[in-house]
Amino acid sequence: MRCRQLARKEPLVSLSPDTLALLEQQAIELPSWAFGNSGTRFKVFTTPGTPRTPEEKIADAATVNRFTALAPKVALHIPWDKVDDYAALRAFAEDQGVALGTVNSNTFQDNDYKFGSLTHVDPVIRQKAIDHHFDCIDIMHATGSQDLKIWLADGTNYPGQGDLRGRQDRLNDSLRQIYARLGDDHRLVLEYKFFEPAFYHTDVPDWGTSYAQVATLGDKAMVCLDTGHHAPGTNIEFIVMQLLRLGKLGSFDFNSRFYADDDLIVGAADPFQLFRIIYEVVRGGGYGPDSPVAFMLDQCHNVEDKIPGQIRSVLNVQEMTARALLVDSAALTAAQEAHDVLGANGILMDAFYTDVRPDLAAWRESRGLAGDPMAAYAASGYQQRIAEDRAGGTQLSWGA
Amino acid sequence: MRCRQLARKEPLVSLSPDTLALLEQQAIELPSWAFGNSGTRFKVFTTPGTPRTPEEKIADAATVNRFTALAPKVALHIPWDKVDDYAALRAFAEDQGVALGTVNSNTFQDNDYKFGSLTHVDPVIRQKAIDHHFDCIDIMHATGSQDLKIWLADGTNYPGQGDLRGRQDRLNDSLRQIYARLGDDHRLVLEYKFFEPAFYHTDVPDWGTSYAQVATLGDKAMVCLDTGHHAPGTNIEFIVMQLLRLGKLGSFDFNSRFYADDDLIVGAADPFQLFRIIYEVVRGGGYGPDSPVAFMLDQCHNVEDKIPGQIRSVLNVQEMTARALLVDSAALTAAQEAHDVLGANGILMDAFYTDVRPDLAAWRESRGLAGDPMAAYAASGYQQRIAEDRAGGTQLSWGA
Amino acid sequence: MRCRQLARKEPLVSLSPDTLALLEQQAIELPSWAFGNSGTRFKVFTTPGTPRTPEEKIADAATVNRFTALAPKVALHIPWDKVDDYAALRAFAEDQGVALGTVNSNTFQDNDYKFGSLTHVDPVIRQKAIDHHFDCIDIMHATGSQDLKIWLADGTNYPGQGDLRGRQDRLNDSLRQIYARLGDDHRLVLEYKFFEPAFYHTDVPDWGTSYAQVATLGDKAMVCLDTGHHAPGTNIEFIVMQLLRLGKLGSFDFNSRFYADDDLIVGAADPFQLFRIIYEVVRGGGYGPDSPVAFMLDQCHNVEDKIPGQIRSVLNVQEMTARALLVDSAALTAAQEAHDVLGANGILMDAFYTDVRPDLAAWRESRGLAGDPMAAYAASGYQQRIAEDRAGGTQLSWGA
Amino acid sequence: MRCRQLARKEPLVSLSPDTLALLEQQAIELPSWAFGNSGTRFKVFTTPGTPRTPEEKIADAATVNRFTALAPKVALHIPWDKVDDYAALRAFAEDQGVALGTVNSNTFQDNDYKFGSLTHVDPVIRQKAIDHHFDCIDIMHATGSQDLKIWLADGTNYPGQGDLRGRQDRLNDSLRQIYARLGDDHRLVLEYKFFEPAFYHTDVPDWGTSYAQVATLGDKAMVCLDTGHHAPGTNIEFIVMQLLRLGKLGSFDFNSRFYADDDLIVGAADPFQLFRIIYEVVRGGGYGPDSPVAFMLDQCHNVEDKIPGQIRSVLNVQEMTARALLVDSAALTAAQEAHDVLGANGILMDAFYTDVRPDLAAWRESRGLAGDPMAAYAASGYQQRIAEDRAGGTQLSWGA
Repeated sequence: MRCRQLARKEPLVSLSPDTLALLEQQAIELPSWAFGNSGTRFKVFTTPGTPRTPEEKIADAATVNRFTALAPKVALHIPWDKVDDYAALRAFAEDQGVALGTVNSNTFQDNDYKFGSLTHVDPVIRQKAIDHHFDCIDIMHATGSQDLKIWLADGTNYPGQGDLRGRQDRLNDSLRQIYARLGDDHRLVLEYKFFEPAFYHTDVPDWGTSYAQVATLGDKAMVCLDTGHHAPGTNIEFIVMQLLRLGKLGSFDFNSRFYADDDLIVGAADPFQLFRIIYEVVRGGGYGPDSPVAFMLDQCHNVEDKIPGQIRSVLNVQEMTARALLVDSAALTAAQEAHDVLGANGILMDAFYTDVRPDLAAWRESRGLAGDPMAAYAASGYQQRIAEDRAGGTQLSWGA
Repeated sequence: MRCRQLARKEPLVSLSPDTLALLEQQAIELPSWAFGNSGTRFKVFTTPGTPRTPEEKIADAATVNRFTALAPKVALHIPWDKVDDYAALRAFAEDQGVALGTVNSNTFQDNDYKFGSLTHVDPVIRQKAIDHHFDCIDIMHATGSQDLKIWLADGTNYPGQGDLRGRQDRLNDSLRQIYARLGDDHRLVLEYKFFEPAFYHTDVPDWGTSYAQVATLGDKAMVCLDTGHHAPGTNIEFIVMQLLRLGKLGSFDFNSRFYADDDLIVGAADPFQLFRIIYEVVRGGGYGPDSPVAFMLDQCHNVEDKIPGQIRSVLNVQEMTARALLVDSAALTAAQEAHDVLGANGILMDAFYTDVRPDLAAWRESRGLAGDPMAAYAASGYQQRIAEDRAGGTQLSWGA
Repeated sequence: MRCRQLARKEPLVSLSPDTLALLEQQAIELPSWAFGNSGTRFKVFTTPGTPRTPEEKIADAATVNRFTALAPKVALHIPWDKVDDYAALRAFAEDQGVALGTVNSNTFQDNDYKFGSLTHVDPVIRQKAIDHHFDCIDIMHATGSQDLKIWLADGTNYPGQGDLRGRQDRLNDSLRQIYARLGDDHRLVLEYKFFEPAFYHTDVPDWGTSYAQVATLGDKAMVCLDTGHHAPGTNIEFIVMQLLRLGKLGSFDFNSRFYADDDLIVGAADPFQLFRIIYEVVRGGGYGPDSPVAFMLDQCHNVEDKIPGQIRSVLNVQEMTARALLVDSAALTAAQEAHDVLGANGILMDAFYTDVRPDLAAWRESRGLAGDPMAAYAASGYQQRIAEDRAGGTQLSWGA
Repeated sequence: MRCRQLARKEPLVSLSPDTLALLEQQAIELPSWAFGNSGTRFKVFTTPGTPRTPEEKIADAATVNRFTALAPKVALHIPWDKVDDYAALRAFAEDQGVALGTVNSNTFQDNDYKFGSLTHVDPVIRQKAIDHHFDCIDIMHATGSQDLKIWLADGTNYPGQGDLRGRQDRLNDSLRQIYARLGDDHRLVLEYKFFEPAFYHTDVPDWGTSYAQVATLGDKAMVCLDTGHHAPGTNIEFIVMQLLRLGKLGSFDFNSRFYADDDLIVGAADPFQLFRIIYEVVRGGGYGPDSPVAFMLDQCHNVEDKIPGQIRSVLNVQEMTARALLVDSAALTAAQEAHDVLGANGILMDAFYTDVRPDLAAWRESRGLAGDPMAAYAASGYQQRIAEDRAGGTQLSWGA
């Protein structure tokens, strides 16, 4: 199938040179784990060609970048991406045309963490969790990564199981120790999540908790906003606005959801919400070279192909960014101040409903890329090649 | 503001003649009460020009139709639209170029209904509620209306307050009596709602209950689906599919919501959801001249202007219908059967992201209408005229 | 009906003298508006005996206190409780045995506030809203009130309608001005609410926003937690813990809900949640004479009798406080630290399932009160008396 | 810890002989898989003593029954409980004092089912899924099981991925084939689930769909209600009432949840909801020897011990049943018919707040059981014994 609009080449009116220059700066970080297998507690389905090594994951991520020029960085997850020589891994990535990005810690798969990690009541286990973050910081020095991202699975399943307050205090102490170890150019970004894997309480369940925690640490500590980690009905763009206003929006984990933390392709469930989020990023100064906000994906391709799933995702972010940049801010402000509710809403909707795809295809072609990266990838034979080449070995997944 | 796309007149590629012919058949019923004042339990704000009589409401509804050619019917709400002479009201409407449509009963504003109406444990009050529906059927004969729509506010606020089972049985008995009184060309459509104004239980809270009730009545009894009346996260297009499959989807009450029954402009909160709903209507045979499905709006314009609010709404339904009709069904089926997840999703998204507005503007112009009905209405002076003309009197609202 | 347990007088084993001494300190503030009529956007049902003046509301509140000894304060809502002479109102209340408590501002019912109040883009309207709070502070001086509670209905209904960031900045400026006017013994408590009456965005939608705002003001600014103002599934006791930990939990608005902000009787919808909330208050030092936490009700008695509705409510809070005080903290800590999940949960549940009602009835009787205040009120003839005495006049409601 | 109330032996006033006779009939079916390991997509933590064979699971289930006399049946899950000789398995169970109960099919873990099973578009895979149910029916003949329970994981993750209508039609055809194969004493119970593992649509997402499907099959087809499978805020007891009214409530899967399908111990998250559900079962004739309603557990003990987790669960069901049986129905009806909202609610709450634990402990002791089964199990040494005896082998889990 070809995009209906791609058949029409002229005229392209939507995107101004200024907008295209801004889009030129877009850089979306891909999660290495999106290229491994993932699933639900019921079943992890496998796919031919799934990477068996961190290098193969990076190669796949670099492939996404080759077709889109939008994804120059790959985030690592430790220990899933543990290697003996991180300098070599960095060199490998750079050979592939990508850099290593955020280092994600993992304190939820060791048996010791059954009842917590950075919040654990046992000082020995808590120190083990802190030490894991020290290791991650060491890796960051080797990989040239800037961000240490902490998503904490800590929580409880039953009322009374844990002391909510004590856990919060211990969390703060643990974070302080980790923060103190950061390098000069490093940042700590603390992710929050409404629920799962804990089902009664989660130790960092909302942006308020993440903010209150990182505010005690210092300027290098920020909040990570995962778009799938909120209660039903939450106005996420409001949180984006607030965290930018407070100077604490460090990064996004983009994905989408219909119900819980579904980790679907960003923009797949509610494209208008993605538009509103990115509009608020732009409005709040979170987009562009001087912004502290890192754009990352964090998704699971349980049933769809992983590489085109990532290509689709970065294109969705790009297309929605283009729409957000189209909003006529001056007209919007005027309508808002005149309390012209329908007019103001109409200005926003006009940008959302504008079909930016032909312009973006032209932009890609002007840079020597295929206009339709999905079709170009399908035609490239890469998927067939890895399916053949990667016979044998153990496919990587979250459990690896 | 002019729509960005309207500046570009050529080429118009999206909509085929067949699609335009289908769009030609679209008829959306407007609720008379959308032209009166509405609000929340905290405050009803008023607007200059708000109708003081049913006739003024109909005149406003007819104005929406004049600018859009999409809204040839006006639904009545009894007793809000009670008049002495319904034949005269019908003639008035026809003079304005619209017909009178669905009659909506109201058994939630009389003090007798504090503890229920069609479910009430007291036979006298229950009979009063049944009799009100008999009156509505009499009105339908006079107005030429086809549908009697029952939205039941019955429910309880506290566990134990009522006997859930007894109320359900009485509801069924009441509905049977009402059904028996319907004229040959009449239908009864039973609306369901998740909650509000009752806060513990509602007697018709979900499609399953509405379906189970109307299934006992006969062929002329159908379900009404209000898009704002579901639990958070509910997949509404699935219900559309199921009710069409069961032959019981009678009508829609279109509106949109972020949280509860917000009654916002249809398509305002989640345009992609509206697209999926209409796609499922089309796919299931619910669109077109032979379909039993009536398209109605049921919205509140609490802070925005009411007439342009209704114009925006019918345009939203039309634009989304155009997009739904663009879906390449053959390609979609092929991708589905090949388990090409990204391909199938991409076919749907391609239609959604296609900007149909220029084509629809051209279609309007070809019929002698303004390409941009919002701008044309604003320029028409109608709003200023009614604001001046309708000085004095009592503005109508839900309470009137 | 008599409480099943009240028939059994001995032995009473649940509550120790220490616990009873703590319960002795309980003081719950009643909202004057709970005694007026309330309802939904669909209908406000009236009841015989409903107050026509602020004095009658205070008399009813004092009646609740006479039967329970739990409710020594009445919160006012301005302008609903506007009088010419607040000193006289205070004297009237004191004659009735109650004090005047929190002053609640109201910036949501004047037509000027259609598009905002403390966040309004128009400086004139914003100043009017600020001035209203200055008036409230003046009233506080006259009534001897300590707390100025701000619940802000400000928000928007459609994406794009307002500038989220600008509104937040203006809110902060408005709050700073109000804060500067507080008396030495005054506090400002800022309530948050998930949604309603605004349906797209609310300017103070969550505890994080309220906290971030009051943290910039000073020590006398605190957060008010209304138990009905959260997204579905929110762990409210976690927020209680966090705000106590941050030193910013100023007060509760107690009520309960199944769906949205239903404003039902506290403890009616999820008694176990109320237990967990109060347990966390106790655990975090929020209960007792040195605590800064004020306990208030904020409920609507739409279909039930208002005075017994308030009696039931304060009894529910008392009973649940008694259960929370029964938790064996030492055993709980031991089980938590041993990771005995079922044991720790069992300790909490044991307290929750203990029937404290006979002990509390005995406690009441020992203080010269009726053991069963609901029955005693019903037998007192007060309801019949006010129904007769309060004929004529205009019953007060939110709209009054 | 000992239950606070257990220390007080006299007087026991709550439960009448009639109530105790009714409680005598209670029989709760345990899921074999609750004794194996379970977890989330992030991690499955293991526990010493976890069964390695179906026989060991049955032995653990029988242990629960020995301590409670409440759990005389064990449900099987095929293929997780596949054995060569089901007659031998049945004999083994009977030796242990329990019977084999419901057979649960599994069509979500074979790679062929990645895109559906009973709904699959490929007739070969669909037939494989149907055949699996034929195998289950064969097993039922061998085990003496009555119920074939179908929980269908079928669904899609992305809009457009599947044809909702076609899938529903194929589902109906598959169910008809399976139904036709049932033995005379067999039943088919069709479970519904809101979401997970599918994240866009689920083929049987709500009770309405399950009801509409089984209604086409015949009298032996019923609905299974899993208490954790609903949208946020759903009034589950209403559905219980409705399905009993329609004659289609076949069985319960009991568990509890705060957020999604958390599969926590029944009654742990919202004990009052469990009370309301069981009250509605009793009120609707669903409790007792002539009732068609089967009570089952379906839980995951991810972090707590499994056998005491099951003991706690059946005790919770028993205690809540006792409370539900305490409701004074005559008084409740009188209060309901008098519209005494607070009185009616109070009658329900009185039963809920009554502490039935001492009576139930006495009842157990009168039958030769320990009054406190949790303590008795802990003291029995069984857990230590299985931890030692079951060294080596592979612990069973969902993946096994």
